[in-house]
Amino acid sequence: MTATRRPVIGFLTDFGLDGAAATCRGVILGICPDAQIVDISHTVAKYAIGDGSFLLRSALPYLPVGVHVGVVDPGVGTERRPVGISTGRGDVLVGPDNGLLAEPADALGGIAEVRELTNAELWLAGTSATFHGRDIFAPVAAHLAAGDATFEAVGAPIDPGDIVRLEAAEAIVNERSIHASVIYVDSFGNVRLSARAEALERAFGAIVPGARLVATVAEHDPLIVAFAPSFGHVAIDAALLYRDSSGNLALALNRGDLAGRLGIGRGASVRLSRPD
Amino acid sequence: MTATRRPVIGFLTDFGLDGAAATCRGVILGICPDAQIVDISHTVAKYAIGDGSFLLRSALPYLPVGVHVGVVDPGVGTERRPVGISTGRGDVLVGPDNGLLAEPADALGGIAEVRELTNAELWLAGTSATFHGRDIFAPVAAHLAAGDATFEAVGAPIDPGDIVRLEAAEAIVNERSIHASVIYVDSFGNVRLSARAEALERAFGAIVPGARLVATVAEHDPLIVAFAPSFGHVAIDAALLYRDSSGNLALALNRGDLAGRLGIGRGASVRLSRPD
Amino acid sequence: MTATRRPVIGFLTDFGLDGAAATCRGVILGICPDAQIVDISHTVAKYAIGDGSFLLRSALPYLPVGVHVGVVDPGVGTERRPVGISTGRGDVLVGPDNGLLAEPADALGGIAEVRELTNAELWLAGTSATFHGRDIFAPVAAHLAAGDATFEAVGAPIDPGDIVRLEAAEAIVNERSIHASVIYVDSFGNVRLSARAEALERAFGAIVPGARLVATVAEHDPLIVAFAPSFGHVAIDAALLYRDSSGNLALALNRGDLAGRLGIGRGASVRLSRPD
Repeated sequence: MTATRRPVIGFLTDFGLDGAAATCRGVILGICPDAQIVDISHTVAKYAIGDGSFLLRSALPYLPVGVHVGVVDPGVGTERRPVGISTGRGDVLVGPDNGLLAEPADALGGIAEVRELTNAELWLAGTSATFHGRDIFAPVAAHLAAGDATFEAVGAPIDPGDIVRLEAAEAIVNERSIHASVIYVDSFGNVRLSARAEALERAFGAIVPGARLVATVAEHDPLIVAFAPSFGHVAIDAALLYRDSSGNLALALNRGDLAGRLGIGRGASVRLSRPD
Repeated sequence: MTATRRPVIGFLTDFGLDGAAATCRGVILGICPDAQIVDISHTVAKYAIGDGSFLLRSALPYLPVGVHVGVVDPGVGTERRPVGISTGRGDVLVGPDNGLLAEPADALGGIAEVRELTNAELWLAGTSATFHGRDIFAPVAAHLAAGDATFEAVGAPIDPGDIVRLEAAEAIVNERSIHASVIYVDSFGNVRLSARAEALERAFGAIVPGARLVATVAEHDPLIVAFAPSFGHVAIDAALLYRDSSGNLALALNRGDLAGRLGIGRGASVRLSRPD
Repeated sequence: MTATRRPVIGFLTDFGLDGAAATCRGVILGICPDAQIVDISHTVAKYAIGDGSFLLRSALPYLPVGVHVGVVDPGVGTERRPVGISTGRGDVLVGPDNGLLAEPADALGGIAEVRELTNAELWLAGTSATFHGRDIFAPVAAHLAAGDATFEAVGAPIDPGDIVRLEAAEAIVNERSIHASVIYVDSFGNVRLSARAEALERAFGAIVPGARLVATVAEHDPLIVAFAPSFGHVAIDAALLYRDSSGNLALALNRGDLAGRLGIGRGASVRLSRPD
């Protein structure tokens, strides 16, 4: 069989599962019938730009090069700009300029060029003020994917330094501690941290599997965690610290919902230290 | 690249996300390997024919012409008829004759022809009494999409005037008030009304963005709402009245869940009036 | 139109809806651009191998022959083996050897051959310990689907008798009673039992629609149920016993959530008997 290389369109929104995303898929297929749409998530917490950004930058590097649409857009219909961002890897990201797309573009070889979506000829006729996913982002992406519009045609260039960026989640690595924050809680309740796995050795020297550390999450009592390669290396319901599939540090309970147990979400502080 | 124009099959059910819809997709692809299935929603509230109808008529006009399957079917296996409805636009809608498909057909150029699905040669062998999605609707749609059955072949014609219709949600537009009802609560908790946006001017004359109106929803205390083009034009958690993406009036809280706050759903009454 | 017969990849996980499954879809499409991925479910209850197994064996027989990936894998990164199972029907199932795949293979013509996935050339580079869906299962399946690896190439053969199997859910059919257990609660709250529909006649002789039986579920008070072909044959909120779409016995409330009402799940005991 010969590969037909249908153009890939990754698609992430906070629209939920009740038809708005499908409406956009319909628009895309009307313009680009061969599109291979890859739904990344449509259940991003409402208005949670940070969560959407995390999911895009985690998933997109594993998708083929394509045109990708991200819409978590509480400012739809206001001054915030609709943009297209081309990346070093060759993708184009389409969505609102509100911080959603900058880090994902970084993860795809960096920002090559940014353009404001001003060419209404590529939009649906009769653009609404509340559904730019359907009226602007989906059709622009579909025209790009179909190859009947160039990236230059979407609108005027913007200085890449001018686009909105989320405040970076930092991690401070000291000699005997790591101060990080929660950047995402996944559907298992696992708690993904802003610190890279390499920070562990910098802070604590060589750490062998099974070694114990103390994790202090927000205002909660300190939690003893075992450093382990994966969940099943600790007892059921026991806490572990692990290198997650993105190379970051993460906390979890084996077969449990740690974030739910602690009642925490994105932004919570986490301090890792040696037991006394 | 040449467009291959895979036949499009829109697909909506209340089956949930646990495998029944996938079973139908498998049946479709077994019969029509090139089908481009567009899942519209499978999380329609159980048995909520009105919600399913709203979602189909909102989404389908944005999908390419195709064969579309809708299954919200509390009467599966009883006397209610399985039907196919061809539309003015050239689509065929397939599903139960219980009100789910009539308004969506209206939105696709109107009903052209209706047929009862009686030709069991187009069904799966060994039809069950509880899963007509898998056994009747999916295979009939797939045969139509694949072009190996004509619409005439699905069964005998029915008088279009005989199909089941949901009671229409009316709106009464007076000189200084609008009486409408809730026709859908979307996943954001935004409250979609039975009144068209044009009703506003008929009731109140020219209304400028920022103008205040009073919305009385069901038995709740009157709510002051600002007429605004989109959510971000009012303060966070403030109420607004807006023209939704279907051209209807709708109520919302900026970044809030109005329907959840009020505890209301489809059918609730809404009265819009001028502040005293 | 000629059928292009894109290779079908069924896909089931407990990953939830927040991007992990999409990451795997991206990996698949990078290797096998023509894959027709059929998402079966990604909302399987976390770690619920039995639920995943039920859904795979219910859905897969209705999918075209293909390569199918199942990942409900609490032991990811531990000793449990990653396997491929070829079936009598011609499919290959890919996933962890933890009981998830054995019954689905039985339902696809039986197990033909089992191989441990040991050929790391077919995996992603830099395999993580916590995301074998992305790093092992998706790429192996995609190589098989694309035809650029044979089944023999995935790794060394395993004795099919050595793979992990879930404890079979039995049903005991006596002359005047059936003792069964709950094998699945579907999204409607319908309660699927381990007994086949044929057991009814063996236990009770000829049973006509409308006949009443007694269902004793776990420790609950006995429930009078009517044997009926489908839900709408009994009053709203009344209990029924029916032959489900897999040919098993099942209990439900017409337009109600029986499992939710009783607070039961997989494994609960059910006794069916005649009323006194």
